[in-house]
Amino acid sequence: MSNFGFADLRLVNPYDVAFREARSAARAHYILDQARVCQSVAEAVGDATLVVGTTAAGHRDLHAPLYRLETAAQLIRQELTRSPVALLFGSEKFGLSNEQMSHCHWLLRIPTRDEHGSMNLGQAVAICLYELRRDASAESKMFAPGASISAADSERFTTLLLEALARSGYVQERTAASSEVKLRRLVRRLNIPASDAETWLGILRQILWKLDQS
Amino acid sequence: MSNFGFADLRLVNPYDVAFREARSAARAHYILDQARVCQSVAEAVGDATLVVGTTAAGHRDLHAPLYRLETAAQLIRQELTRSPVALLFGSEKFGLSNEQMSHCHWLLRIPTRDEHGSMNLGQAVAICLYELRRDASAESKMFAPGASISAADSERFTTLLLEALARSGYVQERTAASSEVKLRRLVRRLNIPASDAETWLGILRQILWKLDQS
Repeated sequence: MSNFGFADLRLVNPYDVAFREARSAARAHYILDQARVCQSVAEAVGDATLVVGTTAAGHRDLHAPLYRLETAAQLIRQELTRSPVALLFGSEKFGLSNEQMSHCHWLLRIPTRDEHGSMNLGQAVAICLYELRRDASAESKMFAPGASISAADSERFTTLLLEALARSGYVQERTAASSEVKLRRLVRRLNIPASDAETWLGILRQILWKLDQS
Repeated sequence: MSNFGFADLRLVNPYDVAFREARSAARAHYILDQARVCQSVAEAVGDATLVVGTTAAGHRDLHAPLYRLETAAQLIRQELTRSPVALLFGSEKFGLSNEQMSHCHWLLRIPTRDEHGSMNLGQAVAICLYELRRDASAESKMFAPGASISAADSERFTTLLLEALARSGYVQERTAASSEVKLRRLVRRLNIPASDAETWLGILRQILWKLDQS
Protein backbone atom coordinates (compact mmCIF):
# COMPACT_ATOMS: atom_id res chain seq x y z
CA MET A 1 0.00 0.00 0.00
CA SER A 2 2.77 2.41 0.93
CA ASN A 3 4.73 1.56 -2.25
CA PHE A 4 1.81 2.70 -4.40
CA GLY A 5 0.49 5.54 -2.27
CA PHE A 6 -2.62 4.04 -0.68
CA ALA A 7 -3.10 4.81 3.00
CA ASP A 8 -6.61 3.88 4.11
CA LEU A 9 -6.55 0.32 5.44
CA ARG A 10 -9.59 -1.20 7.15
CA LEU A 11 -9.52 -4.60 8.78
CA VAL A 12 -12.57 -6.70 9.58
CA ASN A 13 -11.96 -8.93 12.61
CA PRO A 14 -8.20 -9.22 11.99
CA TYR A 15 -6.28 -12.15 13.48
CA ASP A 16 -4.71 -10.37 16.45
CA VAL A 17 -1.39 -12.21 16.50
CA ALA A 18 -0.64 -11.52 12.83
CA PHE A 19 -1.86 -7.93 13.10
CA ARG A 20 0.37 -7.15 16.08
CA GLU A 21 3.35 -8.71 14.32
CA ALA A 22 2.69 -6.75 11.12
CA ARG A 23 2.57 -3.53 13.12
CA SER A 24 6.35 -3.65 13.46
CA ALA A 25 6.92 -3.53 9.68
CA ALA A 26 9.34 -0.76 8.68
CA ARG A 27 8.56 2.21 6.39
CA ALA A 28 4.81 1.54 6.12
CA HIS A 29 4.32 1.93 9.87
CA TYR A 30 1.95 4.86 9.46
CA ILE A 31 -0.57 2.79 7.48
CA LEU A 32 -0.92 0.18 10.22
CA ASP A 33 -1.04 2.87 12.90
CA GLN A 34 -3.96 4.54 11.12
CA ALA A 35 -5.70 1.27 10.16
CA ARG A 36 -9.32 1.07 11.31
CA VAL A 37 -10.47 -2.19 12.84
CA CYS A 38 -14.12 -2.86 11.97
CA GLN A 39 -16.69 -5.32 13.25
CA SER A 40 -18.29 -5.99 9.88
CA VAL A 41 -17.77 -5.58 6.14
CA ALA A 42 -20.75 -3.20 6.09
CA GLU A 43 -18.97 -0.93 8.59
CA ALA A 44 -15.65 -1.11 6.73
CA VAL A 45 -17.05 -0.13 3.31
CA GLY A 46 -19.69 2.30 4.60
CA ASP A 47 -18.40 5.49 2.97
CA ALA A 48 -17.53 3.94 -0.40
CA THR A 49 -19.83 4.45 -3.38
CA LEU A 50 -18.27 1.49 -5.19
CA VAL A 51 -17.32 -1.75 -3.46
CA VAL A 52 -15.24 -4.18 -5.51
CA GLY A 53 -14.54 -7.72 -4.34
CA THR A 54 -11.53 -9.78 -5.37
CA THR A 55 -11.82 -13.46 -6.20
CA ALA A 56 -9.97 -16.31 -7.89
CA ALA A 57 -13.47 -17.10 -9.24
CA GLY A 58 -13.08 -20.85 -9.62
CA HIS A 59 -16.37 -22.55 -10.40
CA ARG A 60 -18.57 -20.78 -7.87
CA ASP A 61 -21.77 -19.04 -8.94
CA LEU A 62 -20.75 -15.45 -8.25
CA HIS A 63 -24.10 -13.61 -8.56
CA ALA A 64 -22.22 -10.52 -9.77
CA PRO A 65 -20.36 -9.26 -12.83
CA LEU A 66 -16.72 -10.34 -12.87
CA TYR A 67 -14.02 -8.28 -14.62
CA ARG A 68 -10.38 -8.95 -15.32
CA LEU A 69 -8.12 -6.65 -13.30
CA GLU A 70 -7.02 -4.72 -16.42
CA THR A 71 -10.60 -3.57 -17.06
CA ALA A 72 -11.59 -3.35 -13.41
CA ALA A 73 -8.80 -0.85 -12.72
CA GLN A 74 -10.13 1.50 -15.40
CA LEU A 75 -13.60 1.43 -13.86
CA ILE A 76 -12.19 1.97 -10.37
CA ARG A 77 -10.02 4.91 -11.47
CA GLN A 78 -13.08 6.50 -13.08
CA GLU A 79 -15.10 6.23 -9.87
CA LEU A 80 -12.14 7.41 -7.76
CA THR A 81 -12.25 10.80 -9.52
CA ARG A 82 -15.52 11.57 -7.73
CA SER A 83 -15.85 9.37 -4.64
CA PRO A 84 -14.18 6.70 -2.48
CA VAL A 85 -13.89 3.10 -3.66
CA ALA A 86 -13.44 0.07 -1.39
CA LEU A 87 -11.35 -2.86 -2.60
CA LEU A 88 -12.30 -5.94 -0.62
CA PHE A 89 -9.94 -8.89 -0.05
CA GLY A 90 -10.93 -12.13 1.65
CA SER A 91 -8.89 -14.20 4.05
CA GLU A 92 -5.74 -15.82 2.68
CA LYS A 93 -7.19 -19.28 3.10
CA PHE A 94 -10.83 -19.03 2.02
CA GLY A 95 -11.18 -15.79 0.06
CA LEU A 96 -14.44 -13.85 0.30
CA SER A 97 -17.56 -15.63 1.55
CA ASN A 98 -20.88 -15.30 -0.28
CA GLU A 99 -22.08 -12.99 2.50
CA GLN A 100 -19.02 -10.78 2.09
CA MET A 101 -19.37 -10.78 -1.71
CA SER A 102 -22.99 -9.65 -1.40
CA HIS A 103 -21.66 -6.25 -0.25
CA CYS A 104 -19.83 -5.84 -3.58
CA HIS A 105 -21.16 -4.06 -6.68
CA TRP A 106 -18.98 -6.31 -8.79
CA LEU A 107 -15.91 -8.53 -8.61
CA LEU A 108 -12.44 -8.54 -10.12
CA ARG A 109 -10.07 -11.35 -10.93
CA ILE A 110 -6.32 -11.14 -11.34
CA PRO A 111 -5.60 -13.04 -14.58
CA THR A 112 -3.79 -15.99 -13.05
CA ARG A 113 -3.54 -19.40 -14.74
CA ASP A 114 -6.72 -21.47 -14.50
CA GLU A 115 -4.66 -24.32 -13.03
CA HIS A 116 -3.36 -22.13 -10.20
CA GLY A 117 -5.84 -19.37 -9.51
CA SER A 118 -5.55 -18.58 -5.82
CA MET A 119 -2.82 -16.15 -4.83
CA ASN A 120 -0.83 -15.12 -1.82
CA LEU A 121 -2.82 -12.26 -0.21
CA GLY A 122 0.06 -9.77 -0.03
CA GLN A 123 0.96 -10.40 -3.66
CA ALA A 124 -2.67 -10.04 -4.77
CA VAL A 125 -2.98 -6.68 -3.00
CA ALA A 126 0.34 -5.48 -4.46
CA ILE A 127 -0.70 -6.41 -8.01
CA CYS A 128 -4.11 -4.69 -7.71
CA LEU A 129 -2.60 -1.47 -6.36
CA TYR A 130 0.18 -1.55 -8.97
CA GLU A 131 -2.45 -1.84 -11.70
CA LEU A 132 -4.36 1.14 -10.27
CA ARG A 133 -1.16 3.23 -10.40
CA ARG A 134 0.04 1.80 -13.70
CA ASP A 135 0.72 4.40 -16.38
CA ALA A 136 1.82 3.12 -19.77
CA SER A 137 2.13 6.67 -21.11
CA ALA A 138 4.59 7.78 -18.42
CA GLU A 139 8.07 8.72 -19.57
CA SER A 140 9.90 5.45 -19.31
CA LYS A 141 13.56 6.00 -20.04
CA MET A 142 14.63 7.66 -16.82
CA PHE A 143 18.19 7.03 -17.89
CA ALA A 144 18.06 6.80 -21.67
CA PRO A 145 20.89 5.07 -23.47
CA GLY A 146 23.44 7.65 -24.61
CA ALA A 147 24.23 8.62 -28.18
CA SER A 148 26.19 6.23 -30.38
CA ILE A 149 29.79 6.68 -31.47
CA SER A 150 30.39 9.24 -34.24
CA ALA A 151 31.25 8.04 -37.73
CA ALA A 152 34.74 9.52 -37.35
CA ASP A 153 35.46 7.64 -34.12
CA SER A 154 33.96 4.49 -35.61
CA GLU A 155 36.37 4.80 -38.53
CA ARG A 156 39.30 5.38 -36.14
CA PHE A 157 38.28 2.26 -34.26
CA THR A 158 38.07 0.26 -37.52
CA THR A 159 41.49 1.46 -38.70
CA LEU A 160 43.18 0.65 -35.38
CA LEU A 161 41.53 -2.77 -35.22
CA LEU A 162 42.53 -3.56 -38.80
CA GLU A 163 46.13 -2.64 -37.98
CA ALA A 164 46.10 -4.82 -34.86
CA LEU A 165 44.68 -7.74 -36.82
CA ALA A 166 47.28 -7.31 -39.56
CA ARG A 167 50.16 -7.23 -37.05
CA SER A 168 48.85 -10.21 -35.13
CA GLY A 169 48.42 -12.21 -38.34
CA TYR A 170 44.61 -12.49 -38.23
CA VAL A 171 44.39 -10.54 -41.51
CA GLN A 172 47.03 -11.75 -43.99
CA GLU A 173 47.16 -8.82 -46.39
CA ARG A 174 47.14 -5.43 -44.71
CA THR A 175 45.70 -3.93 -47.86
CA ALA A 176 43.00 -6.55 -48.51
CA ALA A 177 40.03 -4.36 -49.33
CA SER A 178 37.44 -7.03 -48.55
CA SER A 179 38.79 -7.48 -45.00
CA GLU A 180 38.48 -3.78 -44.39
CA VAL A 181 34.89 -3.72 -45.60
CA LYS A 182 33.94 -6.75 -43.48
CA LEU A 183 35.63 -5.22 -40.46
CA ARG A 184 33.86 -1.87 -40.91
CA ARG A 185 30.50 -3.65 -40.95
CA LEU A 186 31.49 -5.72 -37.90
CA VAL A 187 32.34 -2.55 -35.97
CA ARG A 188 29.19 -0.78 -37.12
CA ARG A 189 27.04 -3.61 -35.71
CA LEU A 190 28.64 -3.16 -32.27
CA ASN A 191 26.84 0.15 -31.87
CA ILE A 192 29.46 1.56 -29.47
CA PRO A 193 28.13 4.27 -27.12
CA ALA A 194 29.75 7.68 -27.73
CA SER A 195 30.80 7.85 -24.10
CA ASP A 196 32.81 4.62 -24.50
CA ALA A 197 34.61 5.66 -27.73
CA GLU A 198 37.76 7.05 -26.05
CA THR A 199 38.10 3.96 -23.85
CA TRP A 200 37.90 1.60 -26.83
CA LEU A 201 40.36 3.65 -28.91
CA GLY A 202 42.73 3.67 -25.93
CA ILE A 203 42.49 -0.12 -25.58
CA LEU A 204 43.33 -0.64 -29.27
CA ARG A 205 46.23 1.85 -29.17
CA GLN A 206 47.68 0.04 -26.14
CA ILE A 207 47.39 -3.35 -27.85
CA LEU A 208 49.01 -1.93 -31.02
CA TRP A 209 51.83 -0.47 -28.93
CA LYS A 210 52.43 -3.84 -27.29
CA LEU A 211 52.33 -5.62 -30.68
CA ASP A 212 54.98 -3.20 -31.93
CA GLN A 213 57.20 -4.01 -28.93
CA SER A 214 57.32 -7.72 -29.62
CA MET B 1 5.61 -17.79 -10.73
CA SER B 2 3.11 -20.63 -10.82
CA ASN B 3 0.16 -18.18 -10.82
CA PHE B 4 1.41 -16.60 -14.03
CA GLY B 5 2.87 -19.64 -15.75
CA PHE B 6 6.61 -19.17 -15.29
CA ALA B 7 8.55 -22.29 -14.31
CA ASP B 8 12.28 -21.72 -14.71
CA LEU B 9 13.66 -20.52 -11.38
CA ARG B 10 17.42 -20.14 -10.81
CA LEU B 11 18.88 -19.27 -7.46
CA VAL B 12 22.34 -17.86 -6.88
CA ASN B 13 23.70 -18.89 -3.48
CA PRO B 14 20.26 -19.14 -1.84
CA TYR B 15 19.90 -18.93 1.92
CA ASP B 16 19.48 -22.62 2.71
CA VAL B 17 17.02 -22.32 5.59
CA ALA B 18 14.57 -20.15 3.65
CA PHE B 19 14.95 -22.29 0.54
CA ARG B 20 14.23 -25.53 2.39
CA GLU B 21 11.23 -23.93 4.09
CA ALA B 22 9.88 -22.66 0.77
CA ARG B 23 10.24 -26.14 -0.73
CA SER B 24 7.35 -27.30 1.40
CA ALA B 25 4.97 -24.68 -0.09
CA ALA B 26 1.89 -26.25 -1.65
CA ARG B 27 0.79 -26.00 -5.30
CA ALA B 28 3.99 -24.47 -6.71
CA HIS B 29 6.09 -27.38 -5.50
CA TYR B 30 7.21 -28.34 -9.00
CA ILE B 31 8.92 -24.97 -9.54
CA LEU B 32 11.09 -25.33 -6.45
CA ASP B 33 11.81 -28.99 -7.24
CA GLN B 34 13.12 -27.99 -10.67
CA ALA B 35 14.89 -24.83 -9.47
CA ARG B 36 18.57 -24.71 -10.40
CA VAL B 37 21.00 -23.58 -7.73
CA CYS B 38 23.89 -21.66 -9.31
CA GLN B 39 27.24 -20.49 -8.02
CA SER B 40 27.21 -17.16 -9.86
CA VAL B 41 24.98 -14.74 -11.74
CA ALA B 42 26.97 -15.48 -14.90
CA GLU B 43 26.07 -19.18 -14.60
CA ALA B 44 22.40 -18.45 -13.85
CA VAL B 45 21.82 -16.18 -16.86
CA GLY B 46 24.12 -18.03 -19.27
CA ASP B 47 21.52 -19.11 -21.85
CA ALA B 48 19.58 -15.82 -21.90
CA THR B 49 20.06 -13.36 -24.75
CA LEU B 50 18.58 -10.54 -22.70
CA VAL B 51 19.31 -10.05 -19.00
CA VAL B 52 17.13 -7.49 -17.22
CA GLY B 53 17.89 -6.35 -13.69
CA THR B 54 15.30 -4.99 -11.27
CA THR B 55 15.99 -2.02 -9.05
CA ALA B 56 14.29 0.58 -6.88
CA ALA B 57 16.83 2.90 -8.53
CA GLY B 58 17.20 5.42 -5.71
CA HIS B 59 20.04 7.83 -6.35
CA ARG B 60 22.71 5.38 -7.44
CA ASP B 61 24.55 5.84 -10.71
CA LEU B 62 23.19 2.86 -12.60
CA HIS B 63 25.51 2.73 -15.66
CA ALA B 64 22.62 1.26 -17.70
CA PRO B 65 19.34 2.33 -19.25
CA LEU B 66 16.43 2.18 -16.81
CA TYR B 67 12.84 1.58 -17.97
CA ARG B 68 9.55 1.67 -16.13
CA LEU B 69 8.02 -1.81 -15.85
CA GLU B 70 5.19 -0.93 -18.29
CA THR B 71 7.72 -0.31 -21.10
CA ALA B 72 10.19 -2.96 -19.96
CA ALA B 73 7.53 -5.68 -20.22
CA GLN B 74 6.90 -4.81 -23.88
CA LEU B 75 10.61 -5.10 -24.68
CA ILE B 76 10.87 -8.39 -22.78
CA ARG B 77 7.82 -9.90 -24.50
CA GLN B 78 9.35 -8.96 -27.86
CA GLU B 79 12.61 -10.72 -27.04
CA LEU B 80 10.78 -13.74 -25.59
CA THR B 81 9.29 -14.49 -29.01
CA ARG B 82 12.75 -15.53 -30.21
CA SER B 83 14.96 -16.41 -27.24
CA PRO B 84 15.12 -16.76 -23.44
CA VAL B 85 15.16 -13.71 -21.17
CA ALA B 86 16.50 -13.63 -17.61
CA LEU B 87 14.83 -11.40 -15.04
CA LEU B 88 17.26 -10.77 -12.21
CA PHE B 89 16.17 -9.90 -8.66
CA GLY B 90 18.55 -8.92 -5.87
CA SER B 91 18.37 -9.92 -2.23
CA GLU B 92 15.40 -8.63 -0.25
CA LYS B 93 17.64 -6.46 1.90
CA PHE B 94 20.21 -4.97 -0.47
CA GLY B 95 18.88 -5.41 -3.99
CA LEU B 96 21.33 -6.02 -6.81
CA SER B 97 25.00 -5.12 -6.30
CA ASN B 98 26.92 -3.18 -8.95
CA GLU B 99 28.70 -6.40 -9.90
CA GLN B 100 25.38 -8.21 -10.35
CA MET B 101 23.94 -5.28 -12.33
CA SER B 102 26.93 -5.36 -14.69
CA HIS B 103 25.52 -8.64 -16.08
CA CYS B 104 22.34 -6.82 -17.16
CA HIS B 105 21.65 -5.30 -20.57
CA TRP B 106 19.32 -2.84 -18.90
CA LEU B 107 17.28 -2.33 -15.75
CA LEU B 108 13.62 -2.00 -14.89
CA ARG B 109 11.84 -0.21 -12.10
CA ILE B 110 8.38 -0.91 -10.73
CA PRO B 111 6.72 2.54 -10.53
CA THR B 112 6.57 2.80 -6.76
CA ARG B 113 6.38 6.13 -4.91
CA ASP B 114 9.68 7.97 -4.72
CA GLU B 115 9.25 8.17 -0.94
CA HIS B 116 8.94 4.38 -0.62
CA GLY B 117 10.75 2.73 -3.48
CA SER B 118 12.00 -0.60 -2.16
CA MET B 119 9.55 -3.48 -2.24
CA ASN B 120 8.98 -6.84 -0.68
CA LEU B 121 10.77 -9.36 -2.96
CA GLY B 122 7.81 -11.70 -3.42
CA GLN B 123 5.50 -8.81 -4.27
CA ALA B 124 8.02 -7.35 -6.73
CA VAL B 125 8.33 -10.69 -8.55
CA ALA B 126 4.54 -11.12 -8.62
CA ILE B 127 4.02 -7.64 -10.11
CA CYS B 128 6.68 -8.14 -12.81
CA LEU B 129 5.27 -11.52 -13.88
CA TYR B 130 1.70 -10.14 -13.79
CA GLU B 131 2.77 -7.30 -16.09
CA LEU B 132 4.37 -9.79 -18.51
CA ARG B 133 1.09 -11.75 -18.68
CA ARG B 134 -1.13 -8.65 -18.64
CA ASP B 135 -3.55 -8.44 -21.56
CA ALA B 136 -5.75 -5.37 -21.71
CA SER B 137 -7.46 -6.64 -24.85
CA ALA B 138 -8.59 -9.92 -23.28
CA GLU B 139 -12.32 -10.44 -22.91
CA SER B 140 -13.00 -9.01 -19.51
CA LYS B 141 -16.61 -9.60 -18.61
CA MET B 142 -16.52 -13.29 -17.81
CA PHE B 143 -19.92 -12.82 -16.22
CA ALA B 144 -21.42 -9.77 -17.89
CA PRO B 145 -24.24 -7.91 -16.16
CA GLY B 146 -27.58 -9.13 -17.51
CA ALA B 147 -30.08 -7.14 -19.55
CA SER B 148 -32.18 -4.46 -17.86
CA ILE B 149 -35.86 -4.71 -17.05
CA SER B 150 -38.25 -4.30 -19.99
CA ALA B 151 -40.28 -1.12 -20.33
CA ALA B 152 -43.46 -3.12 -19.67
CA ASP B 153 -42.15 -4.59 -16.40
CA SER B 154 -40.79 -1.21 -15.41
CA GLU B 155 -44.25 0.27 -15.91
CA ARG B 156 -45.83 -2.59 -13.87
CA PHE B 157 -43.35 -1.85 -11.10
CA THR B 158 -44.16 1.87 -11.22
CA THR B 159 -47.90 1.23 -11.11
CA LEU B 160 -47.66 -1.18 -8.17
CA LEU B 161 -45.35 1.16 -6.27
CA LEU B 162 -47.64 4.13 -6.89
CA GLU B 163 -50.57 2.10 -5.54
CA ALA B 164 -48.60 1.08 -2.46
CA LEU B 165 -47.58 4.68 -1.80
CA ALA B 166 -51.15 5.87 -2.22
CA ARG B 167 -52.50 3.26 0.21
CA SER B 168 -49.76 3.89 2.76
CA GLY B 169 -50.37 7.66 2.59
CA TYR B 170 -46.98 8.63 1.11
CA VAL B 171 -48.74 9.98 -1.99
CA GLN B 172 -51.82 11.99 -1.05
CA GLU B 173 -53.75 11.97 -4.31
CA ARG B 174 -53.77 8.66 -6.10
CA THR B 175 -54.28 10.48 -9.37
CA ALA B 176 -51.68 13.18 -8.89
CA ALA B 177 -50.03 13.15 -12.28
CA SER B 178 -46.84 14.81 -11.10
CA SER B 179 -46.29 12.07 -8.49
CA GLU B 180 -46.64 9.44 -11.16
CA VAL B 181 -44.12 11.16 -13.42
CA LYS B 182 -41.61 11.60 -10.61
CA LEU B 183 -42.06 7.99 -9.57
CA ARG B 184 -41.58 6.70 -13.12
CA ARG B 185 -38.29 8.60 -13.36
CA LEU B 186 -37.25 7.31 -9.92
CA VAL B 187 -37.88 3.73 -11.02
CA ARG B 188 -36.13 4.25 -14.35
CA ARG B 189 -32.98 5.39 -12.55
CA LEU B 190 -32.90 2.13 -10.55
CA ASN B 191 -31.95 0.23 -13.69
CA ILE B 192 -33.45 -3.05 -12.42
CA PRO B 193 -31.91 -6.19 -13.97
CA ALA B 194 -34.39 -8.16 -16.11
CA SER B 195 -33.68 -11.29 -14.08
CA ASP B 196 -34.80 -9.49 -10.88
CA ALA B 197 -38.05 -8.07 -12.34
CA GLU B 198 -40.33 -10.91 -11.17
CA THR B 199 -38.87 -10.79 -7.65
CA TRP B 200 -39.49 -7.03 -7.35
CA LEU B 201 -43.02 -7.26 -8.74
CA GLY B 202 -43.72 -10.10 -6.27
CA ILE B 203 -42.43 -8.00 -3.36
CA LEU B 204 -44.68 -5.09 -4.29
CA ARG B 205 -47.74 -7.34 -4.78
CA GLN B 206 -47.18 -8.89 -1.36
CA ILE B 207 -46.88 -5.46 0.29
CA LEU B 208 -50.03 -4.28 -1.51
CA TRP B 209 -51.88 -7.40 -0.37
CA LYS B 210 -50.82 -6.73 3.24
CA LEU B 211 -51.82 -3.06 2.97
CA ASP B 212 -55.26 -4.19 1.77
CA GLN B 213 -55.61 -6.49 4.80
CA SER B 214 -55.09 -3.74 7.32
